[in-house]
Amino acid sequence: MNSIFEYSLSSPEALEVFSDSGLVDAMLRFEASLARAQASVGLIPQSAALSIVGTCRVELFDVPKIVREGSRVGNIAIPLVKTLKENVGLFNKDATGFVDFGCTSQDVMETAMALITRKAITLIEDDIDISVAALLLLAARHAADPVLTRTLMQPVSVTSFGLKCTGWAAPLVRGRKRLQSSADNALVVQLGGTVGTLAQMQGKRQQIMELMAADLNLRSSSSAWSTPSDEWMALGCELALLIASLGKIATDIALMGQFEVGELLEPHETAATDGSDFGHKRNPADCMVALTAANIAPQRVAALLAAMPHEHERAFGNWRDERTEWPKLVTMAHGSIRAMAQVLTRLQVDTQRMRANRDALRPELTPQATQEWFSLALSREAATLTHSQISLLGNAMSLLNIAAKAE
Amino acid sequence: MNSIFEYSLSSPEALEVFSDSGLVDAMLRFEASLARAQASVGLIPQSAALSIVGTCRVELFDVPKIVREGSRVGNIAIPLVKTLKENVGLFNKDATGFVDFGCTSQDVMETAMALITRKAITLIEDDIDISVAALLLLAARHAADPVLTRTLMQPVSVTSFGLKCTGWAAPLVRGRKRLQSSADNALVVQLGGTVGTLAQMQGKRQQIMELMAADLNLRSSSSAWSTPSDEWMALGCELALLIASLGKIATDIALMGQFEVGELLEPHETAATDGSDFGHKRNPADCMVALTAANIAPQRVAALLAAMPHEHERAFGNWRDERTEWPKLVTMAHGSIRAMAQVLTRLQVDTQRMRANRDALRPELTPQATQEWFSLALSREAATLTHSQISLLGNAMSLLNIAAKAE
Amino acid sequence: MNSIFEYSLSSPEALEVFSDSGLVDAMLRFEASLARAQASVGLIPQSAALSIVGTCRVELFDVPKIVREGSRVGNIAIPLVKTLKENVGLFNKDATGFVDFGCTSQDVMETAMALITRKAITLIEDDIDISVAALLLLAARHAADPVLTRTLMQPVSVTSFGLKCTGWAAPLVRGRKRLQSSADNALVVQLGGTVGTLAQMQGKRQQIMELMAADLNLRSSSSAWSTPSDEWMALGCELALLIASLGKIATDIALMGQFEVGELLEPHETAATDGSDFGHKRNPADCMVALTAANIAPQRVAALLAAMPHEHERAFGNWRDERTEWPKLVTMAHGSIRAMAQVLTRLQVDTQRMRANRDALRPELTPQATQEWFSLALSREAATLTHSQISLLGNAMSLLNIAAKAE
Amino acid sequence: MNSIFEYSLSSPEALEVFSDSGLVDAMLRFEASLARAQASVGLIPQSAALSIVGTCRVELFDVPKIVREGSRVGNIAIPLVKTLKENVGLFNKDATGFVDFGCTSQDVMETAMALITRKAITLIEDDIDISVAALLLLAARHAADPVLTRTLMQPVSVTSFGLKCTGWAAPLVRGRKRLQSSADNALVVQLGGTVGTLAQMQGKRQQIMELMAADLNLRSSSSAWSTPSDEWMALGCELALLIASLGKIATDIALMGQFEVGELLEPHETAATDGSDFGHKRNPADCMVALTAANIAPQRVAALLAAMPHEHERAFGNWRDERTEWPKLVTMAHGSIRAMAQVLTRLQVDTQRMRANRDALRPELTPQATQEWFSLALSREAATLTHSQISLLGNAMSLLNIAAKAE
Repeated sequence: MNSIFEYSLSSPEALEVFSDSGLVDAMLRFEASLARAQASVGLIPQSAALSIVGTCRVELFDVPKIVREGSRVGNIAIPLVKTLKENVGLFNKDATGFVDFGCTSQDVMETAMALITRKAITLIEDDIDISVAALLLLAARHAADPVLTRTLMQPVSVTSFGLKCTGWAAPLVRGRKRLQSSADNALVVQLGGTVGTLAQMQGKRQQIMELMAADLNLRSSSSAWSTPSDEWMALGCELALLIASLGKIATDIALMGQFEVGELLEPHETAATDGSDFGHKRNPADCMVALTAANIAPQRVAALLAAMPHEHERAFGNWRDERTEWPKLVTMAHGSIRAMAQVLTRLQVDTQRMRANRDALRPELTPQATQEWFSLALSREAATLTHSQISLLGNAMSLLNIAAKAE
Repeated sequence: MNSIFEYSLSSPEALEVFSDSGLVDAMLRFEASLARAQASVGLIPQSAALSIVGTCRVELFDVPKIVREGSRVGNIAIPLVKTLKENVGLFNKDATGFVDFGCTSQDVMETAMALITRKAITLIEDDIDISVAALLLLAARHAADPVLTRTLMQPVSVTSFGLKCTGWAAPLVRGRKRLQSSADNALVVQLGGTVGTLAQMQGKRQQIMELMAADLNLRSSSSAWSTPSDEWMALGCELALLIASLGKIATDIALMGQFEVGELLEPHETAATDGSDFGHKRNPADCMVALTAANIAPQRVAALLAAMPHEHERAFGNWRDERTEWPKLVTMAHGSIRAMAQVLTRLQVDTQRMRANRDALRPELTPQATQEWFSLALSREAATLTHSQISLLGNAMSLLNIAAKAE
Repeated sequence: MNSIFEYSLSSPEALEVFSDSGLVDAMLRFEASLARAQASVGLIPQSAALSIVGTCRVELFDVPKIVREGSRVGNIAIPLVKTLKENVGLFNKDATGFVDFGCTSQDVMETAMALITRKAITLIEDDIDISVAALLLLAARHAADPVLTRTLMQPVSVTSFGLKCTGWAAPLVRGRKRLQSSADNALVVQLGGTVGTLAQMQGKRQQIMELMAADLNLRSSSSAWSTPSDEWMALGCELALLIASLGKIATDIALMGQFEVGELLEPHETAATDGSDFGHKRNPADCMVALTAANIAPQRVAALLAAMPHEHERAFGNWRDERTEWPKLVTMAHGSIRAMAQVLTRLQVDTQRMRANRDALRPELTPQATQEWFSLALSREAATLTHSQISLLGNAMSLLNIAAKAE
Repeated sequence: MNSIFEYSLSSPEALEVFSDSGLVDAMLRFEASLARAQASVGLIPQSAALSIVGTCRVELFDVPKIVREGSRVGNIAIPLVKTLKENVGLFNKDATGFVDFGCTSQDVMETAMALITRKAITLIEDDIDISVAALLLLAARHAADPVLTRTLMQPVSVTSFGLKCTGWAAPLVRGRKRLQSSADNALVVQLGGTVGTLAQMQGKRQQIMELMAADLNLRSSSSAWSTPSDEWMALGCELALLIASLGKIATDIALMGQFEVGELLEPHETAATDGSDFGHKRNPADCMVALTAANIAPQRVAALLAAMPHEHERAFGNWRDERTEWPKLVTMAHGSIRAMAQVLTRLQVDTQRMRANRDALRPELTPQATQEWFSLALSREAATLTHSQISLLGNAMSLLNIAAKAE
């Protein structure tokens, strides 16, 4: 499949996280962590654990071969575990039987997906922080600069551009908070779970899982069965909400950046040339990345939700659904926030055009509206509101970052 | 538009909540509460407030006429406020100017939607409680009764039916918790917000809003601008997740209720006759309601998410999008949980068929699998797990209900 | 369920067609036509047919009662046929046994849906004709009037407004053609079909069906089984494509109608007041109807497509899916084309602003671009192209209308 | 991005067609064909055309480098044309100016997408032919073998398995026909189109386009503007309809293949092992591919439809939307039909279990139903119907193939 368009809607970092070798690496981290934990509770010999941990290095594996075989049987864990056993056996024959001990394919797969998703979420949170900081800076700078409000794409009254910026920032702050909480709920160590396999764990499953959770920076799960897909999907919904909030900002910037409006300009360095050699083109190329993502993300979420009512203990079909759409949704979320972080940190604001666009309305206004739109009181009120919002949102962000670090 | 199919996917109670007169009633509750609060902070005269509150009774209004006029101008608040002013003027001419004082159409509309949504969420939570209680009862009763687990619709091992029931209950418990929290975030009093209109409130907006929030059992909002649509959409996602979790239960019951499987039976009284006069038909009619909802809900959420990146301060188009899909999603959520509450409280379980279906596999099994599938140890382990899950889930539900009452 | 927002996205005519009484009326037309056809091939007595036909009048039926009972059993055909039998029995006891002779609920329901859908398609086609005619008129009038082309919302070159209008018209013309063909394929008489029920028809099913098809202005179906849902869904896709093509025109007009652009104006009479009393607002209210429809329709189609892989001969769940979404999609299609027909027949074009917006670019252009954008050759070329397109599209429309009348 | 799951939902052939080098190859075919056509009408020198055609070989290009540069500017045509010019210049400096003469990036891109889509459609049509042939063979073989019909997943009457097979085949035959017609409409040569660029063609655009259409096996387009996206989307809808029809067959086979039903078995060779070592598992792995595709495809179509109302002449955002989703939809369609072709050509049918499942109902039936379900008349009637359907569908397929070859 060509990768041209994947690139443009994602980010190199996020694509790396979700690459084939990124996934295999995460699966090996699961196997190493499992062996360590099982050895530390005395379920498998220390020597076996040492051999396994030492072999769990992605550069020792032929990733494309594993992918090929995995896609034939619809399950990449099978060839990976098989190869891991072979590799371990080269150094320590006795350790082979302790590889992937008491686990199912699903344990490896689900935990690996949690590990790489956690990595991507961190990338996303970092770029939210950058974007919010940029918006609050813009808000402070333009707290009293008048700009038209518009409904149905027609001017309706006046506010300040600073207040507009805090209005853009607020859903990002709220979304950051909800994202953190839903990631904590969803990203758990998956271990054993099914009746029967638990026998091999000899009652030490909970203990092993907690060791692994600490080791892998995931949560341990209290439930005895497979990964709670509702928590995963709740996380997916949060990603889509974030993408939609970014799409809203991108829409406004693209509209305010039209040649005829001219109030904002996406920083020139990032503009795509689009094949034209006209000097006048100021394409809002990064905004367009966010807009495209906002157009597609609702469908990704719908596909994930539609896969939830799967048959019985696990359905091949639905299992695949989720896996196909998940990386696309997560990497697209990072592509979108990365693009907007670039736009917002270097956004060019033309306060003169904002004023001029307001002034052009004067002949159309009733005397009452004229008085209100051009009053100093309005500017002052807007500035006061803007600063109170900056303070509220700034505090919320600080709390979120302190909470994250405390973990 | 015909209402035949709306009925079947919803519930009479939820449809009543979201009916035209339900909406007008909620708008009038907003206006009454506003007048009371504004009078109590001295912004409008007590006598005006008394006249307004006394007139805010839905039976004094010609609802179809208001709807007709509202649909012509794309905004039902305009004819409602106009009529309210006329009605108030009949008793107290001086009060007319204090109707809807300092508010916009959007304030009335958004708060009214919050009020009726709150009502519907309560209906939904009640039926979740009934369903979870029924599932935990079933789990306790069948903690050790063996049943096949199946992946890709083929038998793969053995668990207990009790454990299967706790597996169905868990996402409902988690979903109940997330639903409560997202409803608290989304359902706020919307008041003023725009620069300019705030002038009329004379700096008392926050105070008025808090009085109204207490009065209307909603939260007050700290933000200075319009309703946070991301919080609404997060609530919408939770409703879709609930519908999906119910669809999963319905799928399993419908499959286990097939004539050839015969392990479960939806209670007969609720079965639709489907026009056939064959005595053998045992239609899982209520499960089918939940399944249909699970098929449609992802698309409702996609439509809501797609409407989020709206233009500037408010877009006519997007505003309408949300309003069209929202009642459909909420009432469908209640239809789904109501249907499953009916199924689960009277589900007929045939443990003999469960055993027989397992036994039929015996000739196909390897000796090792045979030993495991038919061992007493497995039953005991399943029973232990089931009881620990019942206790976990039961505690979680108690906490949720205590929290709700404490509010 | 409140009807406020349904109204605004549909049309009174289409809502009437799909009302409860509209549906019952269509079901009675099926029963009357069936009786006539069965009598004419000698399968039932002429006197029975006379009694049945005479009783098949919607005003003799208590529609809300039938809907209520139908929603209880999930099937409106059951109470309708029961009531029809009772009513027929009042006049002619012997005829009761010949009501709905040899049919299933599905036959009545499917054919009734085909009948009312056919009515709605006719409404839609009429408004497409009006819209295309309006666009070709605009194209002729403005064949040489320069207007900017814009990509990524930034000006990129110059064309004529006439050519832009033919660009809007072309997908409507193509869509009209595809719509006609897919409606012909989908809207068939559904009769019997299942093995077993056919016995009662005594080999005369094909003959009866053809008589009914001629009578009801539908196609007869050659297949022996139930209605081809793929043909219905293909028709649904065409409706969504039409809505999307209209959404594209609405997007452009709303953008060109921004105060700062000012090239187009939606006719003032239809503008919603939006609660504001500012004289300057020129809300593109009808365009917003089309935009909202374009935002929702993709999700309606997704819901319909997702319902297609239903279980075995017919699934309750999926059957309901289709019925819930179908009327919403069809009435929304008419709401959208009706709104755009109103916009296009009275669109206000400001060719001076178009020129002025182009002229404002002059300082930004390279000499080569300046020469090209302001050359007479370009205007002439655009005019020639416009006229050749008008002629192509006009001919295509004539052929479509002649074909329709020939049927 | 990991490719594991893309593999499993597609086919190696289709992935190859849509690979980066597949796309670059198609772009070079466009450039070569353009040069040949322009030389043959005398617009560019024959020697230049010779140099260009000779250089248009994908193995002379560093595809990953072009993709990398293209993704930076959001447009792969720009680096490709640049490199092509450089390569041509190595042999023939004078020819450089005639590379991509009078074209825009969009012309190259759109025509290349049409070329590779045409290839993939041919793959799809071939596998439809195989699947339909397999179904008609099964139908002939089992024309009189009784099998239960089921609605709402409960048995409701009896038909023949042969008739069930023709019921599965019919939507494939109809879909094949619609697919052919919509591919013919959508897959056109895109050339020039915009006012201004046409100047360079010196009035020979239509002539050049027709030469290229014949050369590239596409249609020439009569319209003067850019590619009709409604025709592309109509083709996308057809692919989704095909996937849905295949999903329906897969659903039925998976249900009939449940251990407890046992009427059908997906051929064993293709079954995935799923990590289990139980001999009893008969996973319907290929059906699951088709089911997963059917779950996702509606969302792909929704994303495509949602992208249609783009802004003005072309929107960056929407242009990307379509390109991201399109290859996924087309390759998924081939993955689905390929999987089902494998299932249907080797489907194992257990007519004894079909009879036994019917016989198990006997105690539940009314005397009338018993008589009907077990009558010889019913079998005979089913056989007659089956054979008439086989003949209808077989004829339709022959006509389609003759039409295709005549082109």
